[in-house]
Formats: sequence, C-alpha cells, structure tokens
Amino acid sequence: MGLLGLGAVLKSGGLGVSDYDAIVSINIFIALLCSCIVIGHLLEGNRWMNESITALVMGLLTGGVILLVTNGANSHILVFSEDLFFIYLLPPIIFNAGFQVKKKQFFRNFMTIILFGAVGTLISFVIITLGAMGLFQKLDVGPLELGDYLAIGAIFSATDSVCTLQVLNQDETPLLYSLVFGEGVVNDATSVVLFNAIENLDIGHFDALVLLNFVGKFLYLFFTSTVLGVATGLLSAYIIKKLCFARHSTDREVSIMMLMAYLSYMLSMLLDLSGILTVFFCGIVMSHYTWHNVTESSRVTTKHTFATLSFIAEIFLFLYVGMDALDIEKWKLASRSPKKPIALSAIILGLVMVGRAAFVFPLSFLSNLSKKETHPKISFKQQIIIWWAGLMRGAVSIALAYNKFTASGHTEVRVNAIMITSTVIVVLFSTMVFGLLTKPLLNLLIPPRTGPNTPSLLSSQSVLDPLLTSMMGSDFDVGQPSPQYNLQFILTAPTRSVHRLWRKFDDRFMRPVFGGRGFVPFVPGSPVERSAPDSQLGTVTEAENS
Amino acid sequence: MGLLGLGAVLKSGGLGVSDYDAIVSINIFIALLCSCIVIGHLLEGNRWMNESITALVMGLLTGGVILLVTNGANSHILVFSEDLFFIYLLPPIIFNAGFQVKKKQFFRNFMTIILFGAVGTLISFVIITLGAMGLFQKLDVGPLELGDYLAIGAIFSATDSVCTLQVLNQDETPLLYSLVFGEGVVNDATSVVLFNAIENLDIGHFDALVLLNFVGKFLYLFFTSTVLGVATGLLSAYIIKKLCFARHSTDREVSIMMLMAYLSYMLSMLLDLSGILTVFFCGIVMSHYTWHNVTESSRVTTKHTFATLSFIAEIFLFLYVGMDALDIEKWKLASRSPKKPIALSAIILGLVMVGRAAFVFPLSFLSNLSKKETHPKISFKQQIIIWWAGLMRGAVSIALAYNKFTASGHTEVRVNAIMITSTVIVVLFSTMVFGLLTKPLLNLLIPPRTGPNTPSLLSSQSVLDPLLTSMMGSDFDVGQPSPQYNLQFILTAPTRSVHRLWRKFDDRFMRPVFGGRGFVPFVPGSPVERSAPDSQLGTVTEAENS
Repeated sequence: MGLLGLGAVLKSGGLGVSDYDAIVSINIFIALLCSCIVIGHLLEGNRWMNESITALVMGLLTGGVILLVTNGANSHILVFSEDLFFIYLLPPIIFNAGFQVKKKQFFRNFMTIILFGAVGTLISFVIITLGAMGLFQKLDVGPLELGDYLAIGAIFSATDSVCTLQVLNQDETPLLYSLVFGEGVVNDATSVVLFNAIENLDIGHFDALVLLNFVGKFLYLFFTSTVLGVATGLLSAYIIKKLCFARHSTDREVSIMMLMAYLSYMLSMLLDLSGILTVFFCGIVMSHYTWHNVTESSRVTTKHTFATLSFIAEIFLFLYVGMDALDIEKWKLASRSPKKPIALSAIILGLVMVGRAAFVFPLSFLSNLSKKETHPKISFKQQIIIWWAGLMRGAVSIALAYNKFTASGHTEVRVNAIMITSTVIVVLFSTMVFGLLTKPLLNLLIPPRTGPNTPSLLSSQSVLDPLLTSMMGSDFDVGQPSPQYNLQFILTAPTRSVHRLWRKFDDRFMRPVFGGRGFVPFVPGSPVERSAPDSQLGTVTEAENS
Repeated sequence: MGLLGLGAVLKSGGLGVSDYDAIVSINIFIALLCSCIVIGHLLEGNRWMNESITALVMGLLTGGVILLVTNGANSHILVFSEDLFFIYLLPPIIFNAGFQVKKKQFFRNFMTIILFGAVGTLISFVIITLGAMGLFQKLDVGPLELGDYLAIGAIFSATDSVCTLQVLNQDETPLLYSLVFGEGVVNDATSVVLFNAIENLDIGHFDALVLLNFVGKFLYLFFTSTVLGVATGLLSAYIIKKLCFARHSTDREVSIMMLMAYLSYMLSMLLDLSGILTVFFCGIVMSHYTWHNVTESSRVTTKHTFATLSFIAEIFLFLYVGMDALDIEKWKLASRSPKKPIALSAIILGLVMVGRAAFVFPLSFLSNLSKKETHPKISFKQQIIIWWAGLMRGAVSIALAYNKFTASGHTEVRVNAIMITSTVIVVLFSTMVFGLLTKPLLNLLIPPRTGPNTPSLLSSQSVLDPLLTSMMGSDFDVGQPSPQYNLQFILTAPTRSVHRLWRKFDDRFMRPVFGGRGFVPFVPGSPVERSAPDSQLGTVTEAENS
C-alpha cells in the first residue's frame, strides 16, 4: 500500500503528470547529475579533486542559488529522506562493492578486515561516546540522555568509504585498498547494527547481562545477514545454471541478477538484519558463481551496469548532502547560539580522530604480530593512510543523525537542530578538507611509481575492460606457490591453508551445483573444467579485449 | 520538494527503515518479478503464452491470494498510480523501443507509420466516441458529458504495442514488425496528446475555430516533442564525442546516456509535450550517433541494460495491471448493477474492433496505391495481422482511465466506478484472449518458414549478441541498389531519395560533429571513416562474437 506511492506525493493535476514542482526538481537533479559527471571528468587530472567533492560543491552551489531565488525560503529540492538513502542509494553502492572487490585480497586479509571493521568500530564508538559525555556537558547544549550519547557514538563511528575509495587505487595499492575498503563495509554494517541495538536498548537497567545480550545480538545479526546474502547469491547461480537462460536471452539473466541482488537486501530489511552486509556478501557470491554462468554479453553488461548504478548513486548522494547542508530551518533554529554547533563539530572531529587512532595503530600492531615473515606487514606509513582514509564521515552518518534527532525531517527542538547542524558541519568539513588532502598525503607517503613502472597502471586503464579483465583473472587465483600441505603448514599459515581447503571444497561440492568460473563452455563437473580454467579464461578475455 | 519522497509515504519507525508493510510489498513484488521471468522462460516453448500473459495471470493469482488472506479487504499491494506508470515504467520501455528499432525499416515505412499512427488513431477515436455516444445512452450508465465521451474515445484508441511485440519477430517479419511497432509508438503519443487536448478543451463553444486550434496544437506537440528528443540525443552524442570519456571509463558513458535519455523525457514533461515521442526519438538518435561514440563495453552494456530495464518495466506493468484488476472497492461500487460493466465492455470491444478496421484496411489500400512495383506492398493477410495486433488495450488505457475517472485512485461516484471496471475488463479480455490468439493466428496466416530457411532465425538467436549484431549491421545500410539519382527518381521514389539525401547530409554535416558509426577508431571526418565502415564494423562484431 502506497509503496513508491508517488501518487500521494506528486499530486495529480491534469495528465501532463502531477506536481509541476516535482517535475522541475527531477529535471534540475538529472541535469546536475550530468554536469557533475562532465565536470568531474574535466577535473580528473587535478590532484586535489575527486567526484565526491565536485558533487558536494555543486550541491552547495545549487542550494545557494535556490536560497537566493526563493528568498531564503528553501535550499534543497529534495527533503533528505533516510528511506531514499537506505532503500535506493545504498544497496547499489554496497552490492557493487562486493561484486567488484578482489576476492583474493579480501579473503587473504579477512581477519585484519574484521578486526578493523568490527573491533575497531567498537573502540571508536566507546571513545566517541565517552568523550562526548565528558565534553558536551561543558557546552550546555541541552538535555541529552545516555541513549543520545550512545547514538552519537554510533553515528560518528560510521566512516564514509565511498569518498576514500575514489582516491585509493585497487591496482596501485592493493593491500591498502582491500583493507580500507573491507573495513568500510564492515564498519558501515557495524555502525548500523550498533545504532539499531542502541535504539532498542533498555537503558534503565544497564548491566553485564544487557551487555552480553547486546553482544549476542550483534553476532547474531552479523552471522545471519551474511548467510542470507550467501544463500540468495547461490540461489541466483543455481537458477541461472539450471535454466540455461544463456541460449536465449541476456535480458533475463541480467534481470534475474539485478532483482535477486535487490531481493537479498530487501529480505534482510524485512527480517531486521543488516542489509548492507547481506547485499555485500550477495555481491561476492554472485561474482564468484552466478557471473560465470551467464553469457559473455551478460557478463560485460552486469559488470558495467552495477558499476554505473553505483556511480550514479554516489554522485546523487553527495549532491544531496551538499544541498541539504544549506537547509535554512535547521540553521535558523541552531543559530540562536551560533557558536555552539561549530564548537560541537570541532569536538566531534577531534574525537573522531582520536577514536580512530586508538584502534588503527594498536590493531595494526596486533595484525602484524600474527603474520609470518613472508606475508606483507602493514608499514607505519600505511597505518597513517588507513587512519586518515577513515576519518571522513558521510551519508550514513547523516542518515543516522536524521533518524535519531528528527521525527519527520524537520528539527523542532533546539538541541536536535544543533546536533543535526553539527553532523552536517562534520560531514562537510571532513569530506572536503580531509578528502582534498587525501591525494596529496598519499603522494607524499607512497610516491607514485614513475618511469618504467607506471605502465602497469596505464595498461590496466586500457581502452576496453580493465574491470572485467581483473575480475576474470584475479578471483581465487590458482597459482599460489605453496606446495607443502601438512599439519605444520596449517598451523603456521592458517589463512592460506583455509583458502586451500576452501578451494578443494569449492571444486568438489560447490562448483558442480552452482557453476562458477569456467562453467559455460563445459559440461558441468567434467574433469576438463578443473584442469585448465586459466588458459580457457585467458582466451575468453583476449577475445573480449581484442 | 517531496519528489520520490518516500519519507512521506513509508513512514519512519526505527531505523530498520520505515513502514513494515512497504518492505513486505517490495519483497513480494520482486519475488513475483523473478518468478514471472523464470515461469515465462519455462513456458517459452508454448505457442499460446507469452511473458505479458504470464505476468497478468500471476498478478491476478497474487491479487486473489491477497484477497483471501486479507478477507476481501484488499487485492493489490500497490495502489495504481499513473505517476509510477508515466514517470518510471513507460520511459524505459519507449526509449528502448527507439533504441532497438531497425531504423532502416522504420524510416522506409515512415509515411505509412505516421498514416497509421496519427490519422488512424484519429479515425479510431472518432468512431469510438460516436459509437459510445450512440450506444451508452441505451444502457443508462449515468451522467456522462461530451468531454467524457471524447475522453473514452481517446482512452480506447491507445493500443498496447508492448504485448504484441512479444509475439511478432523483428527478424521473421520485419515489415509487419516495423509497421505495428512504429504505429504503436505514434499511436501512444497520439492518444496521450489527444487526451490532454480534450482535457483542456473548452467544450462550451465547440466550432471550427476550436477544431482548427486543436489540430494546430496537435501538430505543434508532435513537432516540438520530436525536435526536443532529437536535440537531447545529439547533445549526448556531442558531449561524449568531445570529452572522449572512452579512454577512461565506461561508467561515465553509460551514466550520461541513461541520464540524458531520462532527462529528455522529463524535459518533455516539464514543457507539457509528449514525453513518449521525445524519448522515442531520443532513443533513435542515440542509437545512430551516441552509441557509436562509446567504447565496446559501453555498447554492449547500454544495449542490454536498456533492453533489461524495458523488460523489467513491462513485466512489472502487467503484474500491476493483473493485481489492480481485483481491486475490491471498484467492484463493490460497480456491482450494484453487475451487468452494466460487462455490457459496456462488450460494446467498447466491438467499437475498438470496428474503429481499428475502419482505418487499417483503407489506409493500407492508400499506402499500397502510393507504392511502386519494386516496393513491398501490404498484403491482405498482413493487413489482418496489423488489425489484430492493435486490438489489445493495456496500461496506457488504464492510466488514462484512472486519470479521467478518479481523483485519487479511488472511485467514489458510481458512473466512474463502472467506467474503471469496464476499462479493466476490456484490458484483461483483450490482452488475454486476443493476446493468446495472436500466435496461432500468425502461424495460420504466415506459416513459419520451415526446412532450410529456419536457420536464419536460429542463427540470429546465437549464443552471443543477436541484438548487437543486427544493430551494428542494419542501421541505414549503405548497400542500396539504386544508382539512378535524378529528378525523375526523386518523383517516383520519394522515400528512397529522401533517404539518400539524408545520408549525404549525415555524412557531410552531422557525422563530423556528432560522431556516429565508425567514429571511434578513426580521426573524425577522415576519408577512411566513410570508405569502409562496414568492413571495420564487421571485424569489431566478429571479435565481440568470437
């Protein structure tokens, strides 16, 4: 009932369809999206800018123009709606993240990623909450309860991985990329789960049992969300493999993949799980099995369609945040004490930096300790980048803040208005200032390889299909030089041997049922399938790139 | 303000996002879409069924189940919203139609298509209006005014090309396909323009001047809508050619194409033009210019993405109509006189058949008269198929009827309830019964080529990319055997010579600016570009298909 019910919002008048204002808004928004893409492309050479910041600035400018035109009545075209964010914009971004991630790197660093994303976020959450409790009271912002402080901790623990990833390069710095990226996803999920848990928390009697309950719920959400995502992904692989759409139509395959991915997210929502985690793992499973069961053209199409949808959603998001930043009502309400939001934002930014430092460096040390000589360690410079790359706060923070501090997108109580404006300031400042400094910092700490080494980057940006090539070539690579397969090896290099066990299991049980790499050209389960998947794929990739 | 404002509709409660019911609805809907695709695939061999009918039946069944579960309180998950239809579902379908149409066939039959689509629809409109005025009064349905009768004429002049096209095959019967399809698009536009014009008509003093005004407005809408679509398409081609996204990213190209296509539609809405016509011509221009300016992978991606979006929108539509058909409120209101809607529907169906016969046969005769010996004429059997293929009424009719006879999706007045239920009956009956009979009728009138001829069909359904191959090979073919280029030729074969003039103009002025076929590999405007585009494309296509 009423879902997508534009009818209710865009009120009908004549057929020319609905609310004139709504159509004007859509037009302006699409035109802005187009110009962001074009301007983002033109600025690409610039070492400071990236598309997120372009979109933010464009959003701010548009908001300013609208403010002037409407004489200060209005600054945004759209009211910020966390539903729009959580139902439409976030799923494609996170799904695409899972779909495109280099699975080998991701799983090799799995433990470190979980450590950073889950434990790290919890540490950051505790520090921000405690810091806020200690420092906010001196400012006399208004009546904040324990629940509010806990929510503030969760809100500002959510990093904005989207922005950072536009700066880091998967080919140049694979370890950093997979760490920061993986952490970002797990972090998003952790923050949202934390926030939900806090909302449902009975703060009246807070004791060890409640804490245990909280931890239990957290682990349960984590586990079930992942299982749901994996199950949906496998189901899609099975359906496409069994029905052999391949012979008939690319449209059906692409439709099924898109719909099933979205279904996994919505099912997760329905069951009150973490949609972000679910859709992320669904993306991983789909790229490991389903994607290999479809035709060539479906592969190219899904690959780029998912990337494009994610790209548009990201730009949309930053435009949106930029426009929303100038919402005049909030500022009016907060401006009776204009210095407070700024002081608050400064405190929060400080807490964010401390909170992040408090887990990045110790956890990196822990992670390095557990690694053997042969495995790459996280250098101090890399630790600084990991710390820096997670300082940005973005749309997740805004969405959570809106959810906590407003009822309907408007901010009636002064303390709420102050919290919202502070959140907006933190997001804008961290995205623009920290974001702008990321590229230079990266160049300073890890100078880009010049001379004969650069072609590796350039060639991967080749005319045709770098994503596709890297995807076909890199997931669960076979050629790992580790022949000693015995008990001692299992003990000394657990991750790697788990990986080998997984490969055996995958080949023996999963592939025959769900397809996957090298499926299409062979009879499923035939010995040829396992003997030379690489050479086979080599040809396919070449044909594609020729 | 409030655009896409889900926040208003899906009311917030906890973060788990919004209205539980809405999430349940989305889940059911996506699951239904998936099952329609799977079932549609399984039934593909069946000579009676097609995906539209599968979706309709699934929608009806689901509606029935919901009716039972909610004890008759509710049958649909979504309220039918013409905004959802006109803003989200129709644009991808029509754009894809323009994008995939075989332009050579379309433009060769351009005059016939316009004759059928515009003049034919007007004839059908007049006959249905007059018939309704004469026959409805005997039934005593209620107080209908002249404006209502005119609207009924417009509503039931809108054919449902979507359903038919799933039965006709572009490769098997190219002439029929291009005629029926082209007519369908022009017809949709004509009906919507007619309907809008009627809504704004001052019926008080209806005289020759008003009629002239009406005709003038109609032509103005037709012309400006087309120009807007062409302009947007050309702009997208120019942007992509000038910026050379190609070297960097497929995502940007695909985003720009998708966004610009949608922008053309929304701009058209904004200017109160016919979005359908605009987005259709935007699709044609994009496939002629823009599509050739992008990288290989962007071509594959856009091709299939547009087709997939259109495919999903179509299934969504039929599911929706199927569910809406069981809306209990309308039936309750109308059922105080249960026979009336059925009698009305029968009359309307009769009028539709007569109205369509009244223009298909005479106009085909006219069209045949104007053709020279060498040109293929429309045989009588083909005329019957054209007549039959346009008898189905679909979502456009329903959307227009809702717009006319309800204020907010509900039907308070009895006469309005009767009109809506009659429309639903006509749509269901024509889609299911006529739709089911189309395939057998086609087989009867034009027996499928068996034996050595069939491979032409089978090979085009090859593993890789029939759409892509046919698209690259067939638009504005160069190899037309018509060497005599003089005044007499211009007089005797106007269409063909216009085509030649267009090609010259295209090569001389358009291609150097907007790119188009064979653009990417060459320096624009170089002589090589024009000398051997076919062989060049041949290689590309082969590489893709290998």
